[in-house]
Amino acid sequence: MQSPNSGGAPDRPTHPPGPVDESAVIALLRARFEAPARLGTPDGGVPPAGDTWIGDDAAVVGLAPGVRALMATDLVVGGVHVDGDLSAPEDIGYKALMVTVSDFAAMGARPSYALVSLAAPPGTDFDGLGAGLAEAAEEVGCVVVGGDLSESPVLVVSTAVVGVAEHGGPDPLLRSGARPGHRLFVTGPLGRSAAGLRILRSAGPEGGSGTQAPDLVRAHRRPVARLAEGDTSRRSGASAAIDISDGLLADLSHLAVASGVGVDLDTVPVAEGASRGEAMSGGEDYELLVATGAPDHLVEAFASAGLAPPLPIGVCTADLGHLTLGGVELPAGGWLHRF
Amino acid sequence: MQSPNSGGAPDRPTHPPGPVDESAVIALLRARFEAPARLGTPDGGVPPAGDTWIGDDAAVVGLAPGVRALMATDLVVGGVHVDGDLSAPEDIGYKALMVTVSDFAAMGARPSYALVSLAAPPGTDFDGLGAGLAEAAEEVGCVVVGGDLSESPVLVVSTAVVGVAEHGGPDPLLRSGARPGHRLFVTGPLGRSAAGLRILRSAGPEGGSGTQAPDLVRAHRRPVARLAEGDTSRRSGASAAIDISDGLLADLSHLAVASGVGVDLDTVPVAEGASRGEAMSGGEDYELLVATGAPDHLVEAFASAGLAPPLPIGVCTADLGHLTLGGVELPAGGWLHRF
Repeated sequence: MQSPNSGGAPDRPTHPPGPVDESAVIALLRARFEAPARLGTPDGGVPPAGDTWIGDDAAVVGLAPGVRALMATDLVVGGVHVDGDLSAPEDIGYKALMVTVSDFAAMGARPSYALVSLAAPPGTDFDGLGAGLAEAAEEVGCVVVGGDLSESPVLVVSTAVVGVAEHGGPDPLLRSGARPGHRLFVTGPLGRSAAGLRILRSAGPEGGSGTQAPDLVRAHRRPVARLAEGDTSRRSGASAAIDISDGLLADLSHLAVASGVGVDLDTVPVAEGASRGEAMSGGEDYELLVATGAPDHLVEAFASAGLAPPLPIGVCTADLGHLTLGGVELPAGGWLHRF
Repeated sequence: MQSPNSGGAPDRPTHPPGPVDESAVIALLRARFEAPARLGTPDGGVPPAGDTWIGDDAAVVGLAPGVRALMATDLVVGGVHVDGDLSAPEDIGYKALMVTVSDFAAMGARPSYALVSLAAPPGTDFDGLGAGLAEAAEEVGCVVVGGDLSESPVLVVSTAVVGVAEHGGPDPLLRSGARPGHRLFVTGPLGRSAAGLRILRSAGPEGGSGTQAPDLVRAHRRPVARLAEGDTSRRSGASAAIDISDGLLADLSHLAVASGVGVDLDTVPVAEGASRGEAMSGGEDYELLVATGAPDHLVEAFASAGLAPPLPIGVCTADLGHLTLGGVELPAGGWLHRF
């Protein structure tokens, strides 16, 4: 599957966690979907050159001669990713589309068309959800062209987005392209969404207005996909990227495992008002983590594009499976759904 | 939105219905998503020539010069569309992908790639779901290339499918192309799924084995998208089509309203073992309803392709808003989700 954008923010699960974690489920489903006998591909289950199927932020598929499409989907579940007491329907709709578009940002690609499916309980404010979805679509230059609608005891918003890889440009950025010696950057300080959620919760029922720390609260309610940063990274020759949805440590681990590298971190940029823990494991930042063998090109390209400078955080090593911060070994962390 | 494939089969809602029906919700969302100010299109909200956005079984979008893609999505919700006591996880996975592929059948198009999102409670049999999804994907020649996974108090399976319109062939079949005088056909007798569901329920807890009327039970658990029938209809010059998901009367109404025609039915083909009511309003048949101005071509093309003959059911009229059966006016019917 793509990035299990489960939201590092430890929102309230609606039930006790089960014994199976999502990485085991993803491995199991991947084995089912990629079983060679099931696929009519000439290579028996191996994607054609240039294609990336399960395992990255978005899938890359050859749709017609010379045309490679990108496809991504994400779920937002009421009570798991979003809390109707803390976010307005407009915020939930906005976030539901933006988290899928963030998968495109991580590939250095642009979204074109979206499908939106709503499973919703009685009394759902569809107009609010629709307004937020439409606002996000407008901001990222994407058109909602269809969807589906069903009753359900709990709100589930599923968005699927399709776009096209730039013709003749550098390939979409995968998680798997980082090599030892490549430098790591993030596109902004981390922990804002988790801090915003903490503030909303601690403010009690009236805290929903988000008058305290509005920037942090907004980062939780209305994350913004870093499309320009991803596109600029890809064009500048970056080697790998992922969006930070599950938390820096978890997503570092995803990138490192996919690339077959270790990571030595020098620093973790903590957003003002966020804790160090929120920055490292809070998740739902939707900043990008970028690896590059040409860090000067990346910094120059961001400056030329008028973007805030990418923040250097460390380097990829040959020490596969190991993550250090200031020389101290760290556990990989983040949020895993359990079933 | 596309066809609200809500499943005409009156599965048990998990809550009392609300006062808002889904057609009102779809109209509201469509207004949000197609608001000219929100769309950067040159025509201010009007899809470019050849594109179809919200309102048909699948969306048709220009993805690159000369390449038109089709996109569709559908939801299957536990307790609404599927009942875990009456269908195995393998059946639920199979059906969840097949109902979206059925939207492609209705357009006369072929699916290429699918995304699968699973919102699932603890204890979910992901291997069973995955096996059923993979089996359906294999049968229709489509590859599952990604997805998302989340915990949830209720099972929601959302599938999104992408394919490409045949280059140089007749356009994808829309709901809107029927004209007065065009003949109407269905690709098979109706009511099998609803009859299968009735039999499963009446058999009690042990009825889940489906040993009674296995063909009807299978039609409920494992509907099959009529891809060859849709493709053959499109190539033979048919003017419009829709898949019968909400029930014949409801889907006839969708096609008639989109085409601006009325309908005079001569007959409703009732499947063996199904009631007349199940055939007319049961839904979830996933047979196709096809309109054509060249009925002889359609019949010949089905015969040449080795398909069962399409069954003639009536004719389109200029009497917009009116549906008759044997000369008697009928109400439009079917299942609408309420919120």
